[in-house]
Amino acid sequence: MPQPTPLPAIAFIGTGIMGGPMAGHLLAAGHPLHLFNRTPAKAASLVARGGIWHDSAEAAAAAGKIVITMLGLPEDVEAVYFGGSGAPGGSSGILQAACENALLIDMTTSSPDLASRIAAAAAARGVAAIDAPVSGGDIGAKNATLTIMAGGEQDAFARARPVLERLGKSVTRLGAAGSGQRCKLANQVAVAVGMVAWCEALTIAAAGGLDAAAVQRVISGGAAGSWALSNLAPRALSGDVSPGFLVRHLVKDLRIARHEADTHGLELPGLAVAQRLYDELLAAGHGDDGTQVLLAHRSPAAED
Amino acid sequence: MPQPTPLPAIAFIGTGIMGGPMAGHLLAAGHPLHLFNRTPAKAASLVARGGIWHDSAEAAAAAGKIVITMLGLPEDVEAVYFGGSGAPGGSSGILQAACENALLIDMTTSSPDLASRIAAAAAARGVAAIDAPVSGGDIGAKNATLTIMAGGEQDAFARARPVLERLGKSVTRLGAAGSGQRCKLANQVAVAVGMVAWCEALTIAAAGGLDAAAVQRVISGGAAGSWALSNLAPRALSGDVSPGFLVRHLVKDLRIARHEADTHGLELPGLAVAQRLYDELLAAGHGDDGTQVLLAHRSPAAED
Repeated sequence: MPQPTPLPAIAFIGTGIMGGPMAGHLLAAGHPLHLFNRTPAKAASLVARGGIWHDSAEAAAAAGKIVITMLGLPEDVEAVYFGGSGAPGGSSGILQAACENALLIDMTTSSPDLASRIAAAAAARGVAAIDAPVSGGDIGAKNATLTIMAGGEQDAFARARPVLERLGKSVTRLGAAGSGQRCKLANQVAVAVGMVAWCEALTIAAAGGLDAAAVQRVISGGAAGSWALSNLAPRALSGDVSPGFLVRHLVKDLRIARHEADTHGLELPGLAVAQRLYDELLAAGHGDDGTQVLLAHRSPAAED
Repeated sequence: MPQPTPLPAIAFIGTGIMGGPMAGHLLAAGHPLHLFNRTPAKAASLVARGGIWHDSAEAAAAAGKIVITMLGLPEDVEAVYFGGSGAPGGSSGILQAACENALLIDMTTSSPDLASRIAAAAAARGVAAIDAPVSGGDIGAKNATLTIMAGGEQDAFARARPVLERLGKSVTRLGAAGSGQRCKLANQVAVAVGMVAWCEALTIAAAGGLDAAAVQRVISGGAAGSWALSNLAPRALSGDVSPGFLVRHLVKDLRIARHEADTHGLELPGLAVAQRLYDELLAAGHGDDGTQVLLAHRSPAAED
């Protein structure tokens, strides 16, 4: 009988709402797991289950054959990979700290350009890097049913795939570095404009005196149907704005998408509308609500 | 054994792409069927199967206990119900021609206000009228799987229901006269803005160098998923713009929706974008293409 190959050590940086359960699946699978998180308390349960805490992202990264990052903003990704003055005493960044032949996987939803810069800097150092953002939210992270959209070299993706398949039900490489991020941005554009679609539909229905819940049931089975109309609209109609996906995160993603659209000279007027509405929601204090809060939103312009 | 009640005679006015197969189901069910269509040739196969041709909408209507109309534009509905100078020698309209206690069912996608006027005029004449527009397209008409959205008095709807259930898989009364039309407009708003959603998503993906078909497959299973992304996007990506639903019909529906939104002082910026884009497609000669032609559309403003 062949001996089972020991699973490679993984460093997991960023163990929040998404990263926490994802790291947990890798631990459960038997990977040695090295951990860092800006807020240490959020890694405590993983440490209790056998994860190894490190006092910096660099120290954790240096201990892993594979390094996974699941952070908040592109600025966080930039700082963690390239280092900077944000950390106490400055930091060198995980690109410097990673061991030779390491594989870096950024699963944050971030900028395609940054993903390309990370891949280039990694190649210059003899390490591999791919971008692999996800959709599916905290539920998908908990149930390991994420959709994972990857970009980077074929070889690096082939090394990453067995690990990614522990986290998601669908793992696809879309192309070169940055392609995973570009696919995720396309996803977010469809999500955001799709939210406008059903919110405006139920708004015009309610304004005409109809029972919006009845309209939701009637129209969701046909050509107007969508995942969001079936899953988020009923929550919005019942006044439940608890987050599946936060307004502030969608606002971040739409800003990256807008930058990407501008890069290619694309107008994308639907995206412009969605971005304006979600910017307004953020400004009105709804950043920590779920995106379905859009249904209750009345644009300031409409109240003039 | 009780004798089976004979099925009531139905007049069917408007036997085009939608009305033709719908009338066929009623004929097949055993209803005596009286027919009129502006273009007689489109009723020929129904006549060959036992339908009774009449030389005017009024003559057909006078022969039915139930009168169903499936027409093109609200103007057509207005002319057929109230009469006018459009017909040779003028016409009295089916509201005048219908027999006492008749039930009139307009299944055209039309204006809520017109539906209310028809219902009021019908009541004044001692006949009943409901609005019952449909979604599901020509496929739904052929397979009797339409979603039917009705508005009008409870009693009238109860009389209509057994007939409507021969045409659709889902038959719902949303409220008073005009409510069916209001629900259909809500459906069309969700459809149209939803088209913008996936088209912009695949556009930004393709501009970034991704294979749009791969992106469609990856994102359609998650929060970005919709009936249109799964069913229309693959056709659009393969260059197939054959109509499930015509651009010119969506343009008509969006104009009615815009009027309805204005009536209620609603801004609905997503609807405004969809309306502009589809108006541009109509102006560019795409009126007889399917609505998925939006994917290939580049707004004139974007080319400046």
